[in-house]
This record gives sequence, C-alpha cells and structure tokens, in this order.
Amino acid sequence: MQTLADLGEFGLIAALSAWLPPPGPHTQTGIGDDAAVLATPDGRVVATTDFLLEGRHFRRTWSQPRDVGHKAAARSLADVAAMGAVPTALLIALAAPPDLEVSWLADFTKGLAAECTRAGATVIGGDTARADSILLAVTALGDLSGRPHVLRSGARPGDQLAVCGPLGHAAAGLALLFRGEPSPRTPAAQSTPGDPAVAALIAAQLSPSPPYAAGPEAAALGATAMIDISDGLLADLGHIAAASHIRINLKTPAIRTAAGSRPAQFTPDQWLTFALTGGEDHSLVAAFPPESPLPPHWHHIGQTSTGEAEVLVDGQPWSTTPGWDHFR
Amino acid sequence: MQTLADLGEFGLIAALSAWLPPPGPHTQTGIGDDAAVLATPDGRVVATTDFLLEGRHFRRTWSQPRDVGHKAAARSLADVAAMGAVPTALLIALAAPPDLEVSWLADFTKGLAAECTRAGATVIGGDTARADSILLAVTALGDLSGRPHVLRSGARPGDQLAVCGPLGHAAAGLALLFRGEPSPRTPAAQSTPGDPAVAALIAAQLSPSPPYAAGPEAAALGATAMIDISDGLLADLGHIAAASHIRINLKTPAIRTAAGSRPAQFTPDQWLTFALTGGEDHSLVAAFPPESPLPPHWHHIGQTSTGEAEVLVDGQPWSTTPGWDHFR
Repeated sequence: MQTLADLGEFGLIAALSAWLPPPGPHTQTGIGDDAAVLATPDGRVVATTDFLLEGRHFRRTWSQPRDVGHKAAARSLADVAAMGAVPTALLIALAAPPDLEVSWLADFTKGLAAECTRAGATVIGGDTARADSILLAVTALGDLSGRPHVLRSGARPGDQLAVCGPLGHAAAGLALLFRGEPSPRTPAAQSTPGDPAVAALIAAQLSPSPPYAAGPEAAALGATAMIDISDGLLADLGHIAAASHIRINLKTPAIRTAAGSRPAQFTPDQWLTFALTGGEDHSLVAAFPPESPLPPHWHHIGQTSTGEAEVLVDGQPWSTTPGWDHFR
Repeated sequence: MQTLADLGEFGLIAALSAWLPPPGPHTQTGIGDDAAVLATPDGRVVATTDFLLEGRHFRRTWSQPRDVGHKAAARSLADVAAMGAVPTALLIALAAPPDLEVSWLADFTKGLAAECTRAGATVIGGDTARADSILLAVTALGDLSGRPHVLRSGARPGDQLAVCGPLGHAAAGLALLFRGEPSPRTPAAQSTPGDPAVAALIAAQLSPSPPYAAGPEAAALGATAMIDISDGLLADLGHIAAASHIRINLKTPAIRTAAGSRPAQFTPDQWLTFALTGGEDHSLVAAFPPESPLPPHWHHIGQTSTGEAEVLVDGQPWSTTPGWDHFR
C-alpha cells in the first residue's frame, strides 16, 4: 500500500494536481507557483477560510475519504454563497501523517473536486505539511458579478425570513452516529443497506450539499441579509438580529414544514430541536423585503420586527442552548 | 490567568478584532460576516495559503507568542511578494487548546499585526477551532496594480540571478537552537543577553522579516522569474530551473558575500551550506535580464544558461540534500 511517505511532498503536490480538474476560466496562475493569480472581473473578491480537523469535524471511521473532501469544500463554498457570490476558487492547506495511504488522498481529492465542480470553483493552490492527524484549512474565493454583497446587517423590520436547504438534518445524522448507528458510508454498511431515511441524515452530516446557486439568486432578488447555517438556525439568526438591530420571530409550523418529514427515530420535539439548534447543514437563511416573492426552493419560516435584537420562537425565547461554541 | 475556555469562541473573535489594526483601504467587509469582501482594483487577486503548526514550524519553548504571529504572517506574505504583488489582506485560521492563556493570544496577535502593517496588509477574516496544539493556516491576498505577475517559468538563458534578504540565517539559527543555545526570545534569556550574532540568527529563524517591497520593485524593474526561499536556495532555484527550462550556475564567492559575515560558531563550509540549502529565510531570489541594473539591496549570485534544468555551484552539482521534504 503506497503511503504519503513514499510519495514525498513534491510527489503529493504533483499527484493532487493530476487528480484535480483543470483550472477554471478565472484562473490566471494555478497550482505550482509561490501563489495563485485569480481574475476578479468586478474589482472585488469574496474570501473565507474554514478548518476541517480530524477528530473535531470528521472521523475516518465514520466518513469515507470522498466525504471528507466533499465536506472540506462545502463548508467554505457555502460561506461564499451566503454573501451572494459565485464561488470561483479554492486553496487547500492539507497536513497528514506520513503513513496515510495515497488511495485515501486520491479519493479525498475526488470528493473535493466533485463538490467544487458542483459549485463552479476549481482548486488554484494550497500547502502541505506533516501532522499526526489530518488537518485541513480551506480558503474559498468568489465573484459577485457586480451585485452588492449581502451582509448580516441589512435586514429591516417587517422583512420575511426564509431558508433554502435542509434544517437540522446534519445534527440528526450526528445524533444517529453517536447512538451507534453504523455509518452507511463505510464499505461494510454499504453491502447491507439499512433505512434510507437514516442513510440520508447521516449523509447530510458527513457530506453536506449546500444550495450554492441559491445565494447569488437570493442576492439578485433583493435579499437584505443572509447567512449560512453552520452553528444552528437560532444561533446564526442571532447574528443577523444583532447585526441588523432587529427582533426575529420564527413560527414552529413553518419550521416543521421546512425541516421536512420526520423519520421514526426521532420525536416531534427532537426533530424541531434539531431544526432550530442543529449546525453544519450549511443551508442558507435570508431576509427578504415583505412584498418580495420568495425565490424557488426557499421556505418562509418567520419575520422580523423592531425590538430588542433577539430570536423568538412563536413569540417566546427558546430555552435550550442556542448553538455551538468550540471552546466551551 | 484567563484562558481561551473562559473567553469562548465568540469572545475570542471579538478580542482578536479588537487587538487588530482597523481594516485597510481595500477592505469592503472585514471580520464578522460569513466571508470578507476585498477590493481588487486591477481585476486580479494574488492568493496563497500556508500552515504554521506547533511542533513542526514553531515551538512555544523557543518562540515568544509575538514571534509566532510574526512568522505566521511572514510565511504567507512573502509568497505574495514573490509574485511581484503588494500584500493587501490576510485570513487567519487558528486552532488552539482551551487552556491556552488569553495573554498568549494577545501577544501573538500583536506580532501578527506588526508584520502585516510592515507589509501593508490587514486581517480581514478567519476561522477558529479547538485542537490539542496550536494550528495556524494563513491565507494572504495581494494586488498587482496592473503589473504582470512574475512566475517561476519566465527566466531566460543569459539572465543574471540575484537575491534580496538573508541567506541561510534562519537555518543557522535553527542549528543553534538544536545545539542547545538558549533562545534569546524567552524572558529568562532576555535578562542575560548573550552574543548578538547568535541572537540575530535565532531571530532570523523565529521571526523572519522578508523584504516585501523588493518583490513588486523587482517586478517593476523587469524580473523574469522570482521565488521566495522557503525550502532552501538550491531547492527553490531548482523550481525556477525546471519551470523555465534553463540551467543555473551559482558562484560561491558571490553566495558568501550575499550570506554576510560568518559568526565564529560556524565553519566556512557550514556557513556556505546554510546559504545554499537552508530554508525559511523567506528572502527573494529572482532572474533579471543580463543588461538590467539590479535594484538596490539585491546581490548578484550567478547566472542562467541553456542546458539541462539543474542548479550548479561553480559549475558542479552540489552533493548534499537540496532541500526539505515534509514527508521524508
């Protein structure tokens, strides 16, 4: 079994370059120089960086290598979409143990490349290093094509709130994995398929598929504020409420509709809690002017008003922890 | 002693924002939204990502926190300069143990901010996560102001080679630290100052100060190829030789002059070896047309010719290992 140590640093860079799709139309200089050069036709670039750390954001026992590549790309690309931009490029910092199998890296790269292709981006550069576990830091860059960028701070009283993409599915999938549900992504489980609803939720956790195109679409249709749901709907809407100085009121019937049909493994309360507090879906939630028709695939979930910057559920504060803090 | 766990994730982000200088003129949206938005006036952006990992690229017993911040910035900013660009912005992915002292982070941020200021860049975004050791991944972005970018592949036969910045000093400093020389950057050593030459070499390792302005200056003066010396002069010139399909011949007297005066701790052979094979100086080496006068602070070290893509020293192959490979 060939390992990273056999390949060496420059062998790895050559292999990654060969496994990745050719550079996209915005790439003026890609992998292989001190830095990349990317075209930014409208004179601005959207830029964001996210970690994906083994043991913290993924486990090799739960995720196939292609899932890890998929999720590494998705986390950063979703942030670009949440500004109303189209992702154009990724830079990948990858540290790994020398005994990591080259086949793992090849499959990881396939997952990464597939998700980049779905978003319209290509990998233009990165860095490699040695570490005891797999460390990824992914920078995504994007293009606004002349549109104003959509901040967290632009929502106005009276706006309607809407979400595009799954709500709470990634958190439900994580709960299933913690309950000991075998990951359907491992070769053993794939030979004996189980409940497809379980498999779909676990897939939402291991390889989330954010609705990238919905970000620029919402921006073009007048979204006043937007964020990607990484920490949980309540926590992330809390950022919009604070930045926009507005109160947000969510309606549980609308949240239940947006969350989709509940699998038998969870109670209605659990399912609602995942939708309100579960992170890592990387769905988009945005505010739209009251008279604006919602774009396709967006679900109305509540509205904004004047008042203290807070997020209410059916007019009341939600009692449980509103999100995830890495250090507590 | 306040720790990261006391501060929490959002407290950390707020503290980092407060410790950092205000956003620079290119920043349209900085820290605090899903992604940053940076102005790119000439319709291109230069982008690069580098790791700085505890235990691999720095040790907390050797480096003060401000050195770690300084080096984290310098590694990525130098890559931007090596393309002929002016650095404009940084994104910092920072993972750390919850028991890390907040004062460590405050001093780290001061070092990072000071080196960013020297280069002309500000921090526009990043990510935080929990890890067992300190992990940094720094993305630097830069502006070419309409100039062509300088690649590794543009050198032509007959070009002269020149270097700007120290040669082998960082490697000599690392050798001193491995010999057990006390780091002059620790509080104990600062109260009993030792040999200033030793201190300068150790500083070159712990907090390298690349000549950022020399990059765009060389580009404006017609440099045909350029690279920052991160893996060692021979290894990095090997990349230029391979990409430009040229042979490079270095002259040892010129290398000795460029390396500067030798401290008593090293033999002439050791000093030359550091200059040829030592990495992490983040100095710049470039090819210039034969008739071109060199910009100030650049030292002639050799020239290019037709022939096999290789780097010779006084017409001969250099026998020892030509650089650093992370996985071997």
